[in-house]
Amino acid sequence: MHKSHAANALLPARFSARLTTSLSAPRLALSAALSCALLLAMSAPAHAAKAGAKPKPQTTAEVIAHAPDGDWRDLDPQNTLVMELPQGQVLIELAPRFAPKHVANIRKLAQQGFYDGLAIVRVQDNFVTQWGDPNGDDPAKARSLGAAAAKLPAEFNIAYRGLPLTRLAETDPWAPVTGFVDGFPVAAAPKQNKAWLAHCYGMVGAGRNDAVDSSTGAELYAIIGQAPRALDLNITVVGRVLKGMDLLASLPRGGPNMGFYEKPEQRVEIKATRLLADMPPQERPALQVMRTDSKSWSQILDARRNRGGWYVHNPGRTELCGGPPPTRPVKAAG
Amino acid sequence: MHKSHAANALLPARFSARLTTSLSAPRLALSAALSCALLLAMSAPAHAAKAGAKPKPQTTAEVIAHAPDGDWRDLDPQNTLVMELPQGQVLIELAPRFAPKHVANIRKLAQQGFYDGLAIVRVQDNFVTQWGDPNGDDPAKARSLGAAAAKLPAEFNIAYRGLPLTRLAETDPWAPVTGFVDGFPVAAAPKQNKAWLAHCYGMVGAGRNDAVDSSTGAELYAIIGQAPRALDLNITVVGRVLKGMDLLASLPRGGPNMGFYEKPEQRVEIKATRLLADMPPQERPALQVMRTDSKSWSQILDARRNRGGWYVHNPGRTELCGGPPPTRPVKAAG
Repeated sequence: MHKSHAANALLPARFSARLTTSLSAPRLALSAALSCALLLAMSAPAHAAKAGAKPKPQTTAEVIAHAPDGDWRDLDPQNTLVMELPQGQVLIELAPRFAPKHVANIRKLAQQGFYDGLAIVRVQDNFVTQWGDPNGDDPAKARSLGAAAAKLPAEFNIAYRGLPLTRLAETDPWAPVTGFVDGFPVAAAPKQNKAWLAHCYGMVGAGRNDAVDSSTGAELYAIIGQAPRALDLNITVVGRVLKGMDLLASLPRGGPNMGFYEKPEQRVEIKATRLLADMPPQERPALQVMRTDSKSWSQILDARRNRGGWYVHNPGRTELCGGPPPTRPVKAAG
Repeated sequence: MHKSHAANALLPARFSARLTTSLSAPRLALSAALSCALLLAMSAPAHAAKAGAKPKPQTTAEVIAHAPDGDWRDLDPQNTLVMELPQGQVLIELAPRFAPKHVANIRKLAQQGFYDGLAIVRVQDNFVTQWGDPNGDDPAKARSLGAAAAKLPAEFNIAYRGLPLTRLAETDPWAPVTGFVDGFPVAAAPKQNKAWLAHCYGMVGAGRNDAVDSSTGAELYAIIGQAPRALDLNITVVGRVLKGMDLLASLPRGGPNMGFYEKPEQRVEIKATRLLADMPPQERPALQVMRTDSKSWSQILDARRNRGGWYVHNPGRTELCGGPPPTRPVKAAG
């Protein structure tokens, strides 16, 4: 196996997640490297049996391939945003449990067409891609928020007690407790009865001024680098990018002023941002997400902890920001 | 301050690092948001004095602005690679202390012009950008390594004892001890007398096959997302990108087969890769790097732990992969 193929083994988890989002079976068959990787993974137990050794832990690809339908969920039409960029479609899953007022406001803004024609105004390497109203600074030119609220309370954390947290076994240096809720990475401080969404790669937040209650959801950002956990508890996180991070993260970086594009022509236009519920059913992206309260998700976490094949040093652990739950195309009905 | 400016406060550390790499004083003056941020930072102690309060901790921008010349070092001509892409220049600092044989081999390959005309063949979102010989799989077409070694021992870790480690106070879930050596993020297991380079954003490694001794430095990758620490101790890390991550990280992502570009025309040509020592002095990038064994670097780590201004929840900590030491343009002689 050539070095370029060794990459198969470099990233079982991510690779498998992509597999379900973007690979169709025929294309799969066309990929030598991939077939090789799958063959390796799939045949492992057989080998083990022959050798009389303990069966190897499942790989992420195997878990996904065998995940029962009950371990997958549909997108929630009321809590999924579809942002159309010239480069393609970005799907954002909103987190009403963690930021109910912001999510309600974002829903209103989307339904009013507030975001349509606005732009990505900032891309700072290893930090954020940010979008909103380029004229937001200028009261004379700023787009009206219409029926949406111009002022919301901060929604930096919620109560920990009663939260249906699928706990992660690993310690996290930023919080005493971590895990997953509704597919989102969550950190918590039980003694303070606080839980919050962690700033992992792909998480989406609402920009604010110095005042903690100055965010409205009219300006949003997505994390495109190392999880900036120092932002946790400092800003309202409203959801995560479910599909299209490859588009948001590969945009040209902006200038030295924190990645803000210096010329209007550098900006990327947001053609439209709609709520999934407001799209004609036949236009809606047909995608399912693995439930983070499912056995399959716990098996994927185990696969990340126990690396076989190419790995000679088994990490024996994973982390909160180790990657989101995989998605899969919805099977055609019938 | 508008939301888009609140970003100043979102990223003091990164913002300041960029400041020194990419901002000239005149352009600095042109940036309203930036001036505002600096003003805020610079005037903090004065305000504090007036109010009779404790002086605020320095911001990263302040530390950099006041760092004495002795806290900066020049690039090592024998251990700096300059890779020319159509998009611009990428500087890579090699780590001879951690991977002496690979670094020596990469030096030979660069001096032979081995990389010139090769290509970036893979960009996988939130993982790696990888480059090398697109025909490396085909013995008939593969480019000769010339005088460079075709086989090297694995250099996954070195001895911990005697290592001049600038220790990081924070715990790291992936290793019992962490810190910085020669500007690189280092993890260590003292009981096993092992130390290794951590796979943080921007780190550069040598692709290998299943055999641990199958890397030569002919194929390299840079981390472009959340630090994949599970790779630590599994592959030879040879250095880090000192400048140009914005170029490597903003390339279009490749296909579902782990980000490998499916069509030759998608590849990004490497126009040339030279050792800094082999460039005419007047062509060499004039850059200095902050020493990670300096007081200024420890002050930057403190600035990351103690966030003021926009932050309402002080993280009180930083992390090994929290960002590389800043660079600054070399002052004109005289």
